[in-house]
Amino acid sequence: MAMLMMSKYAGRYVDPETWRRELLEAIPDLDFRLWPEVGDPEAIEMVLADFAPPGFLRSLPNLKLVSYLGYGVDNLFKDPELPAKVPITRISGAGIADQVAQYVLLYLLRRHRLLDHYDNLQRRRRWDPTRPKRNNEVVVGVLGLGTLGTKVASILAEIGLPVIGWSRTLKRIDGIECLAGEEALADVLGRSDYIVCVLPLTPATHHILKRETFALCKRGAYLINVGRGGHVADFDLIEAVDSGLLSGATLDVCELEPLPEGHPIWGHPRITVTPHVAAFFVDDGIAEAAENYRRLKRGEQIPHTVDRAVGY
Amino acid sequence: MAMLMMSKYAGRYVDPETWRRELLEAIPDLDFRLWPEVGDPEAIEMVLADFAPPGFLRSLPNLKLVSYLGYGVDNLFKDPELPAKVPITRISGAGIADQVAQYVLLYLLRRHRLLDHYDNLQRRRRWDPTRPKRNNEVVVGVLGLGTLGTKVASILAEIGLPVIGWSRTLKRIDGIECLAGEEALADVLGRSDYIVCVLPLTPATHHILKRETFALCKRGAYLINVGRGGHVADFDLIEAVDSGLLSGATLDVCELEPLPEGHPIWGHPRITVTPHVAAFFVDDGIAEAAENYRRLKRGEQIPHTVDRAVGY
Repeated sequence: MAMLMMSKYAGRYVDPETWRRELLEAIPDLDFRLWPEVGDPEAIEMVLADFAPPGFLRSLPNLKLVSYLGYGVDNLFKDPELPAKVPITRISGAGIADQVAQYVLLYLLRRHRLLDHYDNLQRRRRWDPTRPKRNNEVVVGVLGLGTLGTKVASILAEIGLPVIGWSRTLKRIDGIECLAGEEALADVLGRSDYIVCVLPLTPATHHILKRETFALCKRGAYLINVGRGGHVADFDLIEAVDSGLLSGATLDVCELEPLPEGHPIWGHPRITVTPHVAAFFVDDGIAEAAENYRRLKRGEQIPHTVDRAVGY
Repeated sequence: MAMLMMSKYAGRYVDPETWRRELLEAIPDLDFRLWPEVGDPEAIEMVLADFAPPGFLRSLPNLKLVSYLGYGVDNLFKDPELPAKVPITRISGAGIADQVAQYVLLYLLRRHRLLDHYDNLQRRRRWDPTRPKRNNEVVVGVLGLGTLGTKVASILAEIGLPVIGWSRTLKRIDGIECLAGEEALADVLGRSDYIVCVLPLTPATHHILKRETFALCKRGAYLINVGRGGHVADFDLIEAVDSGLLSGATLDVCELEPLPEGHPIWGHPRITVTPHVAAFFVDDGIAEAAENYRRLKRGEQIPHTVDRAVGY
């Protein structure tokens, strides 16, 4: 039974040599292979991947499990020939949730607590304790309440910010007003001063933030997208910010990545863009991959598998 | 029984008209007075203050309670004639703790998550997912574990950062390694990549961060001071940063406030200064002051009183 690792981020987010070494420590007799050194395809029963060329996974006759090297599995669904019966699992998300929560805290508090304004005061040597907004003068709407969104919503509530959470199916989270379903989205957008997108990318959430939904937002709302570039229609966002509908945005993800040099987002004075770094490390995945391999060998159930019908 | 309000921050952090209105809503027959309109001093039994001219409080013959308009009461102790037997109480701190936690999160994550670096990449239109430090590659030392320090330490731990807490007397906080006493301070400073000062200002903590203690710090440590300006010897800090002992600092408080225009901190490339805004709102205090007034009238115990022997 061989395990094949396929990463388009090798050397960037993922260091395959660390994975190889730590997986071999956990499973000394492991037949570990690194794309594109596939070897005998018939031996491969488990693939660790953050991408796969269309049709490739289908070409592995004995594939029993795909373990995604990250949290949002939408990349894999781009393969129209993705084998229908092979289960897909993903990282459980605790370590990723911490990183994403840090990112959201940083870029939300940057605005709520006037960081750029105070930087500017320092440059002008002015001691002017400008009044920020009170916590109860703003509302944060968190779209998506999986492991990541729940962490983000909870930590914002713990520092005194009023939070509304929105998800496909209704969740219950202590201290958070939770809403669900398409109709409730208009309500959340209409009440939120900050809109934080932590959704999975599925056909139902593609371009969930576009001209029509920006028109439902509270005037002057600020968007933070840590989901996927596909959630936001880039040019509709620019239009919404330029017209004053939204006050600005921080985007960790874009429709096209890397963002092309000539793209108007780069130079937009009210849009901050970071190069897909909200969750940088997927280290939780090494121990989980080893455990999945063992479970597969023993014929046991694999945790955190993706529901193909909903896409995450 | 009259209540006198004395605020040097009137119109800035504190809006006395809001206090007057809300206190009169809570206590309709209240004899409320606003400094400098003192009226008959004999009627004054309670003072709400964030400052008092030396000797003034002693001149009130029937004073029974001083309710501090904030959290750090060190200002009052500057009065050598402060009446010894009048209890001093302060705001319980939950609302202040949220604000201080936000401030610490913002300025600590600014560095940990490379905000200025990514801003710079955007200006250069470069999509370069630069690796930040992993959470387990840094340690945060939190000095002071009262209501504020405990909140700060807990929230940092909840987003995955390793935290050591230090206080005068040993505390126990879930998920935080707690140390206490003077000898342990060297240990905390020697292990911390971030040093967050949330101490009360007392004779024992005045200039706790000075040349001798900076020499004990881990090389390249970064200081965040949300305590009082008196905790840090400003010019020793500049020297420690210039020599590379520390990598930089964010100061919300300074030895001299407002910071004089010619002070070298203003233009220092590795020191950020904000105009004493970490906790901007003291609104919790209105309801608490009304409750203290009622307790005083009924002859009941007053909560959150200051221990004169330790100074907070």
